[in-house]
Amino acid sequence: AETIRIAVTPGDGIGPEVVSEAVRCLEKLRARHGLALEWTRFPWPSHAWHEEHGESMPEDALTQLQAYDAILLGALGDPGPMDDSERYLLPDSISLAPLLDMRKGFDQWVCERPARLLPGARQYLADERAKDIDMLVIRENSEGEYVSQGGRLRKGTEDEVATQMEVFTRKATDRIIRYGFEQARLRAAQRVKEGRTRSFRTLDGRTCESQVCLVTKRNALRYWGDMYTEAFEAISQEFPDVAVHHELVDAACMKFVQSPWAFDVVVASNLQGDILTDLAAVLSGGMGVAPSCNLNPTNPDMPSMFEPTHGSAPDIAGQGVADPTAMLFTTARMLEWLGRRDPALAAAGKQLFDAVAADLAEQSGNPRSTHEIGSAICQRLDG
Amino acid sequence: AETIRIAVTPGDGIGPEVVSEAVRCLEKLRARHGLALEWTRFPWPSHAWHEEHGESMPEDALTQLQAYDAILLGALGDPGPMDDSERYLLPDSISLAPLLDMRKGFDQWVCERPARLLPGARQYLADERAKDIDMLVIRENSEGEYVSQGGRLRKGTEDEVATQMEVFTRKATDRIIRYGFEQARLRAAQRVKEGRTRSFRTLDGRTCESQVCLVTKRNALRYWGDMYTEAFEAISQEFPDVAVHHELVDAACMKFVQSPWAFDVVVASNLQGDILTDLAAVLSGGMGVAPSCNLNPTNPDMPSMFEPTHGSAPDIAGQGVADPTAMLFTTARMLEWLGRRDPALAAAGKQLFDAVAADLAEQSGNPRSTHEIGSAICQRLDG
Ligand SMILES: CC(C)[C@H](C(=O)O)[C@@H](O)C(=O)O
Ligand SMILES: CC(C)[C@H](C(=O)O)[C@@H](O)C(=O)O
Repeated sequence: AETIRIAVTPGDGIGPEVVSEAVRCLEKLRARHGLALEWTRFPWPSHAWHEEHGESMPEDALTQLQAYDAILLGALGDPGPMDDSERYLLPDSISLAPLLDMRKGFDQWVCERPARLLPGARQYLADERAKDIDMLVIRENSEGEYVSQGGRLRKGTEDEVATQMEVFTRKATDRIIRYGFEQARLRAAQRVKEGRTRSFRTLDGRTCESQVCLVTKRNALRYWGDMYTEAFEAISQEFPDVAVHHELVDAACMKFVQSPWAFDVVVASNLQGDILTDLAAVLSGGMGVAPSCNLNPTNPDMPSMFEPTHGSAPDIAGQGVADPTAMLFTTARMLEWLGRRDPALAAAGKQLFDAVAADLAEQSGNPRSTHEIGSAICQRLDG
Repeated sequence: AETIRIAVTPGDGIGPEVVSEAVRCLEKLRARHGLALEWTRFPWPSHAWHEEHGESMPEDALTQLQAYDAILLGALGDPGPMDDSERYLLPDSISLAPLLDMRKGFDQWVCERPARLLPGARQYLADERAKDIDMLVIRENSEGEYVSQGGRLRKGTEDEVATQMEVFTRKATDRIIRYGFEQARLRAAQRVKEGRTRSFRTLDGRTCESQVCLVTKRNALRYWGDMYTEAFEAISQEFPDVAVHHELVDAACMKFVQSPWAFDVVVASNLQGDILTDLAAVLSGGMGVAPSCNLNPTNPDMPSMFEPTHGSAPDIAGQGVADPTAMLFTTARMLEWLGRRDPALAAAGKQLFDAVAADLAEQSGNPRSTHEIGSAICQRLDG
């Protein structure tokens, strides 16, 4: 098979620490399965912005990265030092810009964040049914609230007016909704294969094996809310086997806490998806275990980007205590995704996922360093 | 004292049922305390929109309501019948419009939603510290994401572009943030009075008795995020006794589930506040117990509006099973608010709050009808 090339961007904060463990696992898997896989490291920490000889993400970063088949990112956002009045010198709009630049530049229009409460993960909800949580939140990742249009009129005066425009296109709406329905079907098929089934009710009383819940705030944000609703109704006709549901974002957040086991696939806008996926991360045990990916499923020339949901957590960086679980689940997802190019990668991804899940089930609660967790998982990959 | 006049708008769905219990309690309190209080009923259910002789909120509703000192609202939003393809005839942008019209028309620029997990309320979180949840979420209620500006270009075509503008003014930002700091001080003073204290850390290591947490999404929605941040920094200088904190909305939602007991006062924009207050409602036991109010603290000619956080729940309407607890806590808050005009009302409000809380503590879990709960609380008001 042709060699698959990965750009590894550890970033800053705990990023490099958790990425080291991911790379050890990749080495193991490559050796064991003879994978045609290679990778190149791009340090680019945010805080290097301050340093004369350090280099945060350079101007031509996207051009450099585009040559790769995927990007494996640790975390970004360490603002570096503070000034005398304890304000960070580096605003987070700069330290985090590369994330948004990659999503936009490579048109990674899908952000996928699954939430399952795997054995061993911390359960925040009192209800025992939390064990049945198994949802996939699909966030529109290319437009909406994140278009960065707007400005500040009479900036800094008491008459200031700040505006922020939300822009939604029917094209991007259709593609993300259709992607949601396709994932719902795939998930149902996968469940059948594994002998697990779920059932969801349609409005007209039929029973389906999967569901898509559309989230909007159409009662207050009417323009795109109505467009989303119309697109959802139209596309749902193509998927009569998938039950549909609509929630307002406030109610959806509430139900994520009250009855999250009732959701299957959830489709939401960029900002509402951002909020829902942080909640979904908690439902699956917290940031330490939550994977994430930014996909461009349509253009094979554009690399997709795989990053854990967590940030760079500068407060615990450098201590070797960050949990690499989320990073390793993310790496497994990357391999699975690359499996469309080479099935051996998909198999390796599955092996990695199983090893991480087994480690979580057996070892959680046991305080271990980042490196110890990585080692335990590497050992499982040998076994 | 001059007579205080309340406009009672039961609305639709479970609104009229829970409002009936509120009115019974008001009657009791008026008789017992000789309150100079009277009220007028305005039915105006949303679904009357369909009916030839029914009347949903009329054109001149705001003019009628403005004559009152406060508005006590049950719930709105029952869409009425569906059409043949199971679509509601009445879009929620219409059924709910009166809510938004009142908030805007009377410049009710503060929405206050407290979250305390009172004894007897359902605890959704596994952690025992949930018992210590005691926060007040203050939502900017006059602008921001809710200005209804925008539109749909090439509507209904595959080239459609839907826009929604967010508009924030420094004036409204300053007033809501200052209100937040004032509430933090008042809450700290109240706690001291009750012999409960809490302590919060400032960035420079001092300890304070109260805290304000500002929520934004300034790393992605920069324009108003930066303006909010600057306003917050400036106003915090006037309140050196209050600790300050900043959270991004996604992280804030996560922490509402992971460690909600760490929050005191939370200030957020209209939409982000909408989301956070639904989560806060869950933290305090669910929609059945969550009060809410929409205040205009600056213009005494404009009535404030008091409504539970819950909606009209048409699915359980008419069965007499809705929990009136949220409505009664809301009524208590209204009396407390009107106490600035007549201290006897504040005393009555406190008595009502205590009676509802006592009922919750003793009777919860015991399945009772709406009317039974109302009767039990009325009895306590006699006791
Ligand atoms: C860092 C930030 C800009 C980003 C986002 O809002 O998308 C993050 O919260 C995420 O969810 O990946
Ligand atoms: C009904 C709806 C328009 C309203 C809002 O979004 O403000 C509701 O969710 C609320 O929180 O009062």
